Amino acid sequence: MNNISNSSTPTSTDVSFSIGLFGFGTVGRGLYDVLQRLHTDRVSIRRVCVKHLERHRDADVCFTDSADDIFNDEKVNFIVELIDDDVAAYDIVCRALRAGLPVVSGNKKMLARHLPELICLQEETGAALLYDASACGSIPVIRNLEEYYDNDLLQSVKGILNGSSNFILSKVFNEGMGYAEALKLAQDLGFAESNPSLDIDGWDSLYKLIIVTMHAFGIYVAPEAIFTYGISRMNDYDIQFANEKQRRVKLVGTAEKIDDSHLSLSVMPHLISRQKYIYSVEDEFNGVVIKGLFYYKQFMFGRGAGGHPTGSAVLSDITARLYGYRYEYKKLRSDRQPAYTTDFSFRVYFRYTNPADRHLLTFEHVDETYTSATNNYLVGYVCMSELVQKAEQLRKADVFLAAYPLD
Amino acid sequence: MNNISNSSTPTSTDVSFSIGLFGFGTVGRGLYDVLQRLHTDRVSIRRVCVKHLERHRDADVCFTDSADDIFNDEKVNFIVELIDDDVAAYDIVCRALRAGLPVVSGNKKMLARHLPELICLQEETGAALLYDASACGSIPVIRNLEEYYDNDLLQSVKGILNGSSNFILSKVFNEGMGYAEALKLAQDLGFAESNPSLDIDGWDSLYKLIIVTMHAFGIYVAPEAIFTYGISRMNDYDIQFANEKQRRVKLVGTAEKIDDSHLSLSVMPHLISRQKYIYSVEDEFNGVVIKGLFYYKQFMFGRGAGGHPTGSAVLSDITARLYGYRYEYKKLRSDRQPAYTTDFSFRVYFRYTNPADRHLLTFEHVDETYTSATNNYLVGYVCMSELVQKAEQLRKADVFLAAYPLD
Repeated sequence: MNNISNSSTPTSTDVSFSIGLFGFGTVGRGLYDVLQRLHTDRVSIRRVCVKHLERHRDADVCFTDSADDIFNDEKVNFIVELIDDDVAAYDIVCRALRAGLPVVSGNKKMLARHLPELICLQEETGAALLYDASACGSIPVIRNLEEYYDNDLLQSVKGILNGSSNFILSKVFNEGMGYAEALKLAQDLGFAESNPSLDIDGWDSLYKLIIVTMHAFGIYVAPEAIFTYGISRMNDYDIQFANEKQRRVKLVGTAEKIDDSHLSLSVMPHLISRQKYIYSVEDEFNGVVIKGLFYYKQFMFGRGAGGHPTGSAVLSDITARLYGYRYEYKKLRSDRQPAYTTDFSFRVYFRYTNPADRHLLTFEHVDETYTSATNNYLVGYVCMSELVQKAEQLRKADVFLAAYPLD
Repeated sequence: MNNISNSSTPTSTDVSFSIGLFGFGTVGRGLYDVLQRLHTDRVSIRRVCVKHLERHRDADVCFTDSADDIFNDEKVNFIVELIDDDVAAYDIVCRALRAGLPVVSGNKKMLARHLPELICLQEETGAALLYDASACGSIPVIRNLEEYYDNDLLQSVKGILNGSSNFILSKVFNEGMGYAEALKLAQDLGFAESNPSLDIDGWDSLYKLIIVTMHAFGIYVAPEAIFTYGISRMNDYDIQFANEKQRRVKLVGTAEKIDDSHLSLSVMPHLISRQKYIYSVEDEFNGVVIKGLFYYKQFMFGRGAGGHPTGSAVLSDITARLYGYRYEYKKLRSDRQPAYTTDFSFRVYFRYTNPADRHLLTFEHVDETYTSATNNYLVGYVCMSELVQKAEQLRKADVFLAAYPLD
């Protein structure tokens, strides 16, 4: 085999990347650590742009607080953007693409809001933007959907896309911990943001779902158009209800064809029965089920967050580019995308404490009603379009809504 | 977004494939079905070469029993080889590559035996050979290992690579079915070959492991050099032992770095504890755990066999080629492959019925011994090199050997 090992390949060539890195938080630091451990001279961090120069003294890289220092450095031939601020991230990514530089971004919110422009900009400039690390950390879900699952055969992509909220739900359902206590533990362990709304109200999952949907089904749907509802209103009664039905509450992002030409999207709690794959996704893990016409179900599971898992996912994006990889957006460019719809009904559990909230939603069909002095619920069918319309009211009321499929 | 949808991409071009297909068994037929359902004019089956022309009358394709009819047809620009006979498969694949035709193969045994030559031949001719469908059916494990998991960070790839044997083990451990009865059921349901040795003695898993190892760690190890031991000698006592320890027997293919520069490979039963991911892989499913330094564990799970799942995996190989995809064998070409070793010890359960078989293996350290009138066992540490040497004797004796790690 020696004759193979020593030969050169036509495509990999001798490209190497000197990275201009923006951000040195959990993931930026994770990328640095992973690179330290790797034996490669093809990828190195040349400069790091941070807000606060006085921090990070222990890392052996060249820090700056000026983006110009990176973009004016002729040796920088690759941009990696790992900052929190989505507005600044958008500027960095656009500037990189316009300069013809390949760029990796980890900013879900920015990507979810600007994917259409960023796809156009890649086309105009010829530069490539990669962002597998932005959705599900170490699970290579975007590239797999892009490369492996043909649109016509793909039926749904569903999953637990946020590790922090899942960690909380695991503690509540497996260890009987109270919701507030579980949230605090998640924060103490660094799994949840100090402002937990991003995680527990479903926004983080929503951004990932939008990105995933582009690569799964080739369509872009803006965040505002998608029903997004989290777990922060779940109370002890809801937990008891789920336990009685031998189900667990999971916060699920769903992209699902409801017929050959229509796609539904949502982020909301589901009452998941024991036989489902995602029932067993625990703690801070993510799990994605890809369902297709002929291959039935595929399940991908792994750490969805954290500096090192996400740092190694960022590195994967970078090394893919060493081999010339770029997203082709094949499904976007096909002429057979499904159309986004909210015009369908599905079965939900709807708990309301105040009897007046009963009429917050119009049910097309009611399977069960329960009333008592302290808690009330309905099980029945509601239209997704109504949920999109009433999302804000639902978030504010003392009610809890969860998909409750028959299976 | 319309301006994007209608634009053309530089790389996908307007290639289309007219396939010359060899074999119309379960998988060939599966590919045909999947293509019928797909709305594409870029991939079509032009001719199918089969042994028995009189069968397959119901499929609307042009059959032949002569390979020349396919290779002499100037319109055929893609070869798909899905036949059982590994010698004939090798000839077809070589002939295709030499003719400069891209080829997809599903023949694990052929690939496992001839990978080095086939890699050289791809390089000589410039033609591409793809075979993701050969390992784990619908789980895209090869392409993920090739593209996504860097060698230096990758620690192990372990999994249930054979659906038939796993189906039998599931019936035995979950439903208390006898081994013989479970085997018969697997055969009746079409999960197991009429000659079950390929499945239950581990050969099918071995071939997949060899292919996976090339893309995971960049080295080729010949089948003869790898300890391969199946489940056909497992008896009721072994099942009882596993149950008492709250473990399940699973037939596991393992490629694992034992240190920074050495790799171990094996196919053998493991006594798997409840907290392991593969403990829950049931029935005819496959599950692969990819473990790395920074991303911890990834788990991929799906249908490993069957006409439609594997047919859609074959289609994935074909459509990847529409976009110019080929395996780069990046890890083979790096200068940091681990070396294959059998020079390490590990903990096993060794049951022997005949007391004389006690000395079939030399134990470096014994943790437990048990003797009785009917069954005897040892738990202790053996060297892998000894197992490779004594594999044939172990297969013939009335003994059962399973890895029995402490965790």
